Formats: sequence, structure tokens, C-alpha cells
Amino acid sequence: MSTTPPDFDALLASTCQPFPASRKIYLEGSRPDLRVPLREVLLTNGERVSLYDCSGPYTDPAVRIDLQRGLPALRAPWIEERADTESYAGRIVQAADDGARRDASRLDPLHAAARKLQRQPRRAKAGGNVTQMHYARRGIVTPEMEFVALREQGRREWMAAYLGDAAREARLAGNPLGAQIPREITPEWVRQEVARGRAVIPANINHPELEPMAIGRNFLVKVNANIGNSAVSSGIAEEVEKLVWATRWGADTVMDLSTGKQIHTTRDWILRNSPVPIGTVPIYQALEKVGGIAEELNWEVFRDTLIEQAEQGVDYFTLHAGVRLPFVPMTARRRTGIVSRGGSILAKWCIAHHRENFLYEHFEEICDIMKAYDVAFSLGDGLRPGSLADANDEAQFAELRTLGELTQRAWQHDVQVMIEGPGHVPMHLVQANMGEQLRHCYEAPFYTLGPLLIDCSPGYDHIASAIGAAQIAWGGTAMLCYVTPKEHLGLPNREDVKQGLIAYKIAAHAADVAKGFPGARARDEAISQARFEFRWEDQFNLALDPDTARAFHDETLPKDSAKVAHFCSMCGPKFCSMKISQDVREYEAAQRGMAEKSAEFRRAGSEVYVPLVKA
Amino acid sequence: MSTTPPDFDALLASTCQPFPASRKIYLEGSRPDLRVPLREVLLTNGERVSLYDCSGPYTDPAVRIDLQRGLPALRAPWIEERADTESYAGRIVQAADDGARRDASRLDPLHAAARKLQRQPRRAKAGGNVTQMHYARRGIVTPEMEFVALREQGRREWMAAYLGDAAREARLAGNPLGAQIPREITPEWVRQEVARGRAVIPANINHPELEPMAIGRNFLVKVNANIGNSAVSSGIAEEVEKLVWATRWGADTVMDLSTGKQIHTTRDWILRNSPVPIGTVPIYQALEKVGGIAEELNWEVFRDTLIEQAEQGVDYFTLHAGVRLPFVPMTARRRTGIVSRGGSILAKWCIAHHRENFLYEHFEEICDIMKAYDVAFSLGDGLRPGSLADANDEAQFAELRTLGELTQRAWQHDVQVMIEGPGHVPMHLVQANMGEQLRHCYEAPFYTLGPLLIDCSPGYDHIASAIGAAQIAWGGTAMLCYVTPKEHLGLPNREDVKQGLIAYKIAAHAADVAKGFPGARARDEAISQARFEFRWEDQFNLALDPDTARAFHDETLPKDSAKVAHFCSMCGPKFCSMKISQDVREYEAAQRGMAEKSAEFRRAGSEVYVPLVKA
Repeated sequence: MSTTPPDFDALLASTCQPFPASRKIYLEGSRPDLRVPLREVLLTNGERVSLYDCSGPYTDPAVRIDLQRGLPALRAPWIEERADTESYAGRIVQAADDGARRDASRLDPLHAAARKLQRQPRRAKAGGNVTQMHYARRGIVTPEMEFVALREQGRREWMAAYLGDAAREARLAGNPLGAQIPREITPEWVRQEVARGRAVIPANINHPELEPMAIGRNFLVKVNANIGNSAVSSGIAEEVEKLVWATRWGADTVMDLSTGKQIHTTRDWILRNSPVPIGTVPIYQALEKVGGIAEELNWEVFRDTLIEQAEQGVDYFTLHAGVRLPFVPMTARRRTGIVSRGGSILAKWCIAHHRENFLYEHFEEICDIMKAYDVAFSLGDGLRPGSLADANDEAQFAELRTLGELTQRAWQHDVQVMIEGPGHVPMHLVQANMGEQLRHCYEAPFYTLGPLLIDCSPGYDHIASAIGAAQIAWGGTAMLCYVTPKEHLGLPNREDVKQGLIAYKIAAHAADVAKGFPGARARDEAISQARFEFRWEDQFNLALDPDTARAFHDETLPKDSAKVAHFCSMCGPKFCSMKISQDVREYEAAQRGMAEKSAEFRRAGSEVYVPLVKA
Repeated sequence: MSTTPPDFDALLASTCQPFPASRKIYLEGSRPDLRVPLREVLLTNGERVSLYDCSGPYTDPAVRIDLQRGLPALRAPWIEERADTESYAGRIVQAADDGARRDASRLDPLHAAARKLQRQPRRAKAGGNVTQMHYARRGIVTPEMEFVALREQGRREWMAAYLGDAAREARLAGNPLGAQIPREITPEWVRQEVARGRAVIPANINHPELEPMAIGRNFLVKVNANIGNSAVSSGIAEEVEKLVWATRWGADTVMDLSTGKQIHTTRDWILRNSPVPIGTVPIYQALEKVGGIAEELNWEVFRDTLIEQAEQGVDYFTLHAGVRLPFVPMTARRRTGIVSRGGSILAKWCIAHHRENFLYEHFEEICDIMKAYDVAFSLGDGLRPGSLADANDEAQFAELRTLGELTQRAWQHDVQVMIEGPGHVPMHLVQANMGEQLRHCYEAPFYTLGPLLIDCSPGYDHIASAIGAAQIAWGGTAMLCYVTPKEHLGLPNREDVKQGLIAYKIAAHAADVAKGFPGARARDEAISQARFEFRWEDQFNLALDPDTARAFHDETLPKDSAKVAHFCSMCGPKFCSMKISQDVREYEAAQRGMAEKSAEFRRAGSEVYVPLVKA
């Protein structure tokens, strides 16, 4: 453990640069404190393209970032105004929360600094319910819902200019496969989607720093990035940097899956500095509290952990409440048994005590905690397949049906729910997963890990799973949990996080285009137009990863002049197919001109000499 | 141009190592000179897993490689035996074939060495036809067909051990989407597929070095890698090394797309050293011969180029014979016009002369050349979309229908045909491409470039296109043309070639599994079993890229002891989900045991004391 805090400014220097040719702009909502961020790219032809942006204040040079103070609490006034919460002393943080012994010193600088970061927790007033779903069901459009509506809508003006051709739009019209995406995303429509459980806005009242976003099949497909230290690797500063880095490359939410020491303190740092919702798997910390021995877990330790994390501001909890005792033996003859960490902890507990999963048994009490803070359920698939051999088996689908049953119970409390999905699934069985989820879980947002289509691609599982992710997202999955190149092999570093995110942004975007999300294709139209016109700078700046696009181009043609050249390294200067296309246009225009002339000639009675003016 | 030949031994040192724990084995056919290579992986538990292998003699330490002599001509006796070809003087190689002026010296060492490599060309005896299709249609099973059958069949014994569970096989049964894949791949069945045009065996009689392979929807999905120098980059030695490197990482065929100088000599080096079929786009060289001016192309120059390349041994020609004059104006209002180089050259020629495409007009004469050497058509999609906006448009599908018409005409000559496909296509329009191709081209093998599902991922187009590739391959595409990370940005280097290939091997394998190709899933079962049993070495060695899998594992846990450890870096030593699964098995067995005991107890009449022995 370091004795001086890390140099956070240095840490963020390369992580917080605005993207090239880009600036942060804000869409103004119905009130001055409702400002929705967008990234605006200035093209060399004067056009302005604006893009969905989850990088938070980090890419806004106007905001002074101080990780030791945390981000501004933009939602604080909204929460305050609702006047249905109270500030309270909160649970007393214990050494054991960080996996330390009672006598361990808590005086190291990161812990001391974390104390400064800590907010006084809030909770619903006695008997109250502060979930977005609860407001939605009472007909209230919250600022969070309006924020989401503006964010999903984006700036449609520039998109319209690219999508104006009716014949083309008819040819390319998306196939939503059952999604019901409106042309205009309004706050009232967001409210309806949240009310019927088809969308989730993860937004703990103790995470006022977050910029609200929605997860639902009728919204843009979202991507989650997992970070977190483990017993063998990584420190707090590194995790905070990964958080910021992940949002830069498009993480819509981040899960902190820390399992080693300092779990509590790491989470303080992450939450106070996160513009995106944070999810956790509380059983990881609960297990640390009982010395890593699954059998020693109990409801009291678990409940204490839920409250601890809810007070810190965690926005959604992965809870493996569907790993029921009778399902556990169904996994015994699998190729790879139970591969979910949470699932196997609970399976171990169930069989050690020969008792029903305590999360399942205490589900009502969990709902009471969730609604006091607005923590959303992410009902975990503890029995997901870990190999193609185990895909779509009895254990997996028995658990999925239980998650559907729990969805109904959570909704009776107006608690928000997502459903987690697999895992390893061969391509031809992917859509059955989506179908079963829609059938049994009433369109609660599906949140899948991949799926990974083959087992033999370690080192490239981000690619093998992005293929499955694109397919299931087209089918209706609302959020994709990324997989990095290190999956099955090790813990992702900064570069792995980026590679995983880009692969998954590709999958998500491919699905948005396929579903026909309004305006989704405009970015592709803009970059293709830039390509056709040899506007290299614009091609780089509109790319998902401008840095890599530019670097790759420079490898072959490093000179600045090549960036305005009307050729590329593929064909070289002498011959260029794009250039020939310009000739084709002239030819077509000439042919059309001739045809028109000829028609005119015929109309004029085929007289060779047409009088210049009427006499 | 260098004055001494490159050190080829050094060049190949890192490219020819056998894969870890692997050795080359051969399946013996019906004759001693028919030996089909496989890569056998020796697992730490004593199992032997054998894999399809296109790396040729390069990964067989028993073969002495000398790039300056070329590979052994394994097909030479087969061709000889058929006694339907003749050796002849061949066309005289000219300086212009290499893009040099008449007075340029041809004495540089690579050219001189190439002379040694050159074989005396063969062709069909007057009026003859030496295509695999011609033999197939006459009921002849050639050694090439038998080779293909053994290769596709592989060693089924080890696969059967992994795929023995009937209930699991029923649950995971593939969905072939119209493919008709038999349980056993026999030489006679290969013959039938070739005879009806549903499979192609590219095998020019002047490329006797190649190990025959088949391309067809009822065979394993194949991957092509493009290499080739251009006006701005790359030399001969580098291209030869890329060829060997590409086959190492799974290129089933390689296209030499060179466009700069030394086209002819580069091709000599590539063909004589290639164990896989080589494709070209002859119009690139023809264009060089007329100084890069499309309008100056003519049938005579083109015909001369076809013969030149057929004599060298090129196995398939991409010919854009479907870019018909009336289709050219259809591209005028596209977002990105014509993006195929070959397509745009011919479009330019058509509009410059206001005449029909000379390839279309001379198609019969082209067939006569193809059948004299057994060069397969790869009918090019010169009007493929270069952006989502242009996908599935009038120009694209008009050309596709013409390719269907040309397929019928080629088949009248018993000439083998593949059909090339797009390009940039949004996910929801991918299957329409497959459907149109099947409808209009009579199941001639489809050979697609991607398709790429979005336009805004330069730097990662190998990923964005692998997604589309997996989908269209599942639908019936027989061969996938890879895309590298450099697509749209620059020329691929060695690492890009590998990245492109791995992404496409993933796509192809995912499709084989989805289609239910017999035994395809066995590799996944084997690696998953190794994962479950913590056999790390076996996991690495069964991976598509063993080197990267091992390196990634070592990044987090570099010690050798970690490779036999019963934990991984994701969970750490204290807690491991795989370990818990072992506990579940014991529990399930105990439960089952109890249930049996209980049933036995009831059967025995519920007596508490059962007599130990009958009295």
C-alpha cells in the first residue's frame, strides 16, 4: 500500500484530452440545471456532427477536475426538490469493509482522502419509495427522464441532412425485430417505458454525480465495462484511471468487480468520480467479510453489505437470486459446471447448508432496501453456460424463468430490474436466448455478456463475443457487457479495456443501425461522405477511435500532405477508384442531359432546325 | 530495387516454427502420394487433437524449405497421369509484365532467381478441358477430390469422444439454413458437389505445389487473405513472407493483389512457394501494361495477361465481367460511387468508349482459356457498396443477376465459378445478399468481403466485418475474404495480416459450429474441458493463436507454477468458481446416492435393519 496519494493529475493527463476537432456542447432542457452533454465534431467542410457522449466532465476543458473532491453533484437539486428523502448518519464504516483486520491502520492517505470524498448518505423517508419506476408509475416525469430523452434524441438536424433521401431510407429501413422505437424520443415516452419496466434508469440517490442514461430495448444499445482489482493485481488509483478511460471509449455504465482488499475505499473513489452508473456484485464483498468462506455467508452480513453499498451510491446490484437449490444439481454433468463467480458462491452455500438460496428467501427485504435508495436489480445469471457444450441447458433456462418470477415481484415494489444473460452460446442458439428472455421476463431489459460464439479464441474473445453481442443486441438486448482480449487469461489493463470497448461499441452501433434507431446511421453517412471526398481528417475524427485511425494512416503515408491528397495508399496516386466515380457522375449527367435533349427534340417535333425565337 | 537477394532463411525463421506441442501428421489416401496434412496437438493428458492445417510444408520440420527452389510439386504425377495436358514453350515473358520499360535491365538477382523457379507451362491438349468440374461431370473422382474429402473429414475419432452425449448433441444440433452437409465426407460426394457447381476446387495445372482444398457451402467455411505490393509500398521478399505467414494463421487461399512494379516476378515467387490456391485480379496487371490509363485497355492486352498468369499457375481470377455499361450510371447517385478497383477501371473504360464491358463481350473466349488450365472464375462484384448508404441497391443487384447469367455460361464450359459479394452492408440486410445470391447464382460458392456492418470503425474494420462475415457464412457463404485493421487506411503489415486472419477464423469457425458441420465443435469441447481442469498449457495450445493466449496469461501470472495452478488471475487463489463446480458434482452424486438409497430402502420394505446375509 502506498504511503503518499498518487499524482492524479498526471494519471489523467492522457485520459482527459478532448477528442480531436471536438468540443463538449450541452443540450438545454426545461430548466437551467438540466444540461445534456454531447461531443460536437467540427468537420473541415464546416459541418458539425454531434455524438452521444458518456465521457462526462473529463472531456470538458471548462470543468476543473479534482479527483480528490469528486465530480459536481448535478442531480443533488433534483433529489432535494422531490422532498421524499432524508439525510442520515449512515452505517459506520468498518475496517472489515476493506477486508482489513480490526487492528489495521486506516490512516493511509487514500483512505484519509476517501473520507473527504464521502457524502452524508440519503434514503427514502420512512416507508417511502424513491425509484424512477415509482415516479414513472405515478405519472411523474423526473428531470432524469427528461435528461435521458434529450440524450437519446440527440441533435437530429445534422442527421436529417444525411438521411433525407426517401428512396434510400426505404431501401435501408431498419428491422426492429419487435422493438417499438418512436421517431421522436420525448420525456413522456421515457416515463412510459420506465413505468412498464421496459427501460431502467440506474440512478441511486446517493450517486448525484451521474449523468442519467437509460437501458431498454427501445433505446440506443448500451455497453458496460467491468473494472476492479483482485487479490493478485491492481490498486485504487489504477481503477479510477480505468473508470475515466472506460467512459472515454464509450462505457455507458461501469461495474466495479473488485474482490481483493480495499473494496470499500476503491468504491468511494470510483463513485464520487463517476459520471456513469456504477454496478457491483455485492456478494464479492460479503464473501471477503467472512474470510472468503462461502459457507459462512449469511443474510445479516449480506444485508449489511447491501446497505453499505447503497449508501455509497451504487446504482445497480447484480444479485444471483435465481440460483435456487434445486437447480444446482442440474449443473453437475456440465462440461464446465458453474462459471459465474457469484453463482458458484451461492451454489456452494446452498449445497453446504442444503438450504434454499438466502437471496431468494429474503427477496422482499432486498426490495425494501432497493427502493429506499433507488438501486436497480441486475438479476444475475449465476448458472450461465461457460462453454458451448452447456449453452441453453436445463439449468440455464430454469434460472431464467426464476428471474422472470423475481422481476414480477420486484415490479410489485416499483423496483427497477434488468436481467443478465450469457455467456458461451453457439451462433444458432443466440436468438433462442433472447426469445426465452422476452417470453419469461416481460421485456425487462436484457443485459448480456457477449455471448461468446466459440470457446477456442482466448486472446481474441472480445471479437468472438462481439459477434454474438451484435446479434443479440439486434434481437433486443438493451446493454452489452464487454469482454476484453484478456478474458479467460488475465486481468485487463488499460489497453485491453479500450479494445474491449471499441469491439462492443461496434456491436452496439451495428445493432442500432439494424434496428433502425432514428439517426443511428448518420455517423456512417458522414464518414462515408468524408471518405468519398478524401477528407482524411474528418474520417479520422468521425471514427470510433480517431487516434488509431490516424496512426494507421500515418504508418503508410506519414506526410501531412497525404491527409489532403486525393488518393490513398491502397491504390496509390496514379489510379483511384473514388476518382473514377466522379467521372461516372459526369457521364451519367451527360447521358441524362442527352436523353433530355433527345426528349426535347422529339417534343419539338423532331425538327432539326428549331427557331431560335418565335418570330 | 535491391542488388542481392534477401536472406530467405532468416526471413522465414520465425514464420516456420511448428506450433507449440504440435506436429505435422498426414492422413494416407488411396495411393502413396496422396497425403493430407493435419496439425496434431499433443495434450498434457495424453490426448491427441488434430486440426485442419493450411500451413503447408512450412510447419513440417521434416521438409527442407528452399524458397529459391519452390515447394515440391505434389500434384505433378496426378496431372501427368491424366495424360490430357501438354508441356509447351509458353508465352515469352516481357519487361512490361513487370511494369518495366523495354530497355530496363532484367538482371537483378530476384528476377534471375525467379527464372530458376519458373516451370515450363502446361495446358490442355488442343480442344481439351482439364477442369475439376469437367472430370467431376464425367464421373471421375480425381486425387484432388479425394484429398479434399480426407481433409474435410479430418480425424473423427477424437471428435467423437467429445461429442458422444446424445442429449447434448440434440440440444446443440446445428441449423444449416439450407446447407446439406453429410455426416461423412466421401470423395464421391465431393465429386458430386463439384459437378453441380456447388463447390470449387481451385487447382491450376500449373500450380502443382498446392494442397487441394474446396470452397462450397457444404464444406468448412474458408478464409482468403489478400497480400500484394502497391505503388507506394512493399517488396517481393516481404510478400513471400506474408504468404507463408498468412497460411500459418489459417489462410485457405491467398490473393496477390499487387499493383506496382514487379507484378510478374512477385507472382512467380508466390506461386512456386504457395501450398494454397492463389487468386489474382488480372486487370490490375493489364492496367499497368497500358501505363495506368483505363481507357487504353483492350481485349488483346487483357487476353495476353490471362494467359501469362494462367501459365504461371494462378488458380482463380477475379473478373469483373458483370460491370455492364447500362449499370454504370446506376452508381452515379451513390454516397460512395464505385469502390472496387477492378469495377471502377472497367466502368471508366465503358464510359470512355461508351461501349459494353469487353470482359462481358469476350466471355466465351475467357472460358476457353480457363478450361485449358483449370483456372476458376471468381466473378467480381465491381459494383459492391462502399458504404451502408449504397447497400443492396439497384446497381449491386443488377450486377449480381448478371453474374448468375455468366455462371450458367461458364458451367456450359465446365469451368468452375465462385461469386464475389459485398462489402458495406448493415446487419439487417446481410441475409438478403445471401438470399439473392442463392436465388440468382444457382448455389455457386459465394465469396464475400466481410460484409462490414458499419462505416465508422476504421482501424477496427476487421472486427466490424467479422461480425457480418460470421452471419453471412452461417447463411451459406463458402469463403470469407478477410479485412485487416488497416482497411480504408493503409496497407497491411505482417501483424495486420495475422489480426485479420484470426478475426476471420473466428467468424468461419462460429459459422461451422452454427451450421452443425460434423465435428466442428470438438475443438471447443476440448479447450473447455482443459479450462475446467486447469490444464493451462492445453488451453494455450488449442487456441486459435497459442502465442497470444500464453503471452496474455503470463502478463498477469508469469510464473511457470501458475500454469499448473488450480486458479486463475480472475478470481485469485482463495476463491475459484471452477473449483466449486467440483463440489457440486460431489453433492449431486451424494444426492443421487441418497435418493437411490432411499428407493432401495423403500424397495426393501422400509425395514430399518436389513439382514447382512441371507441366513
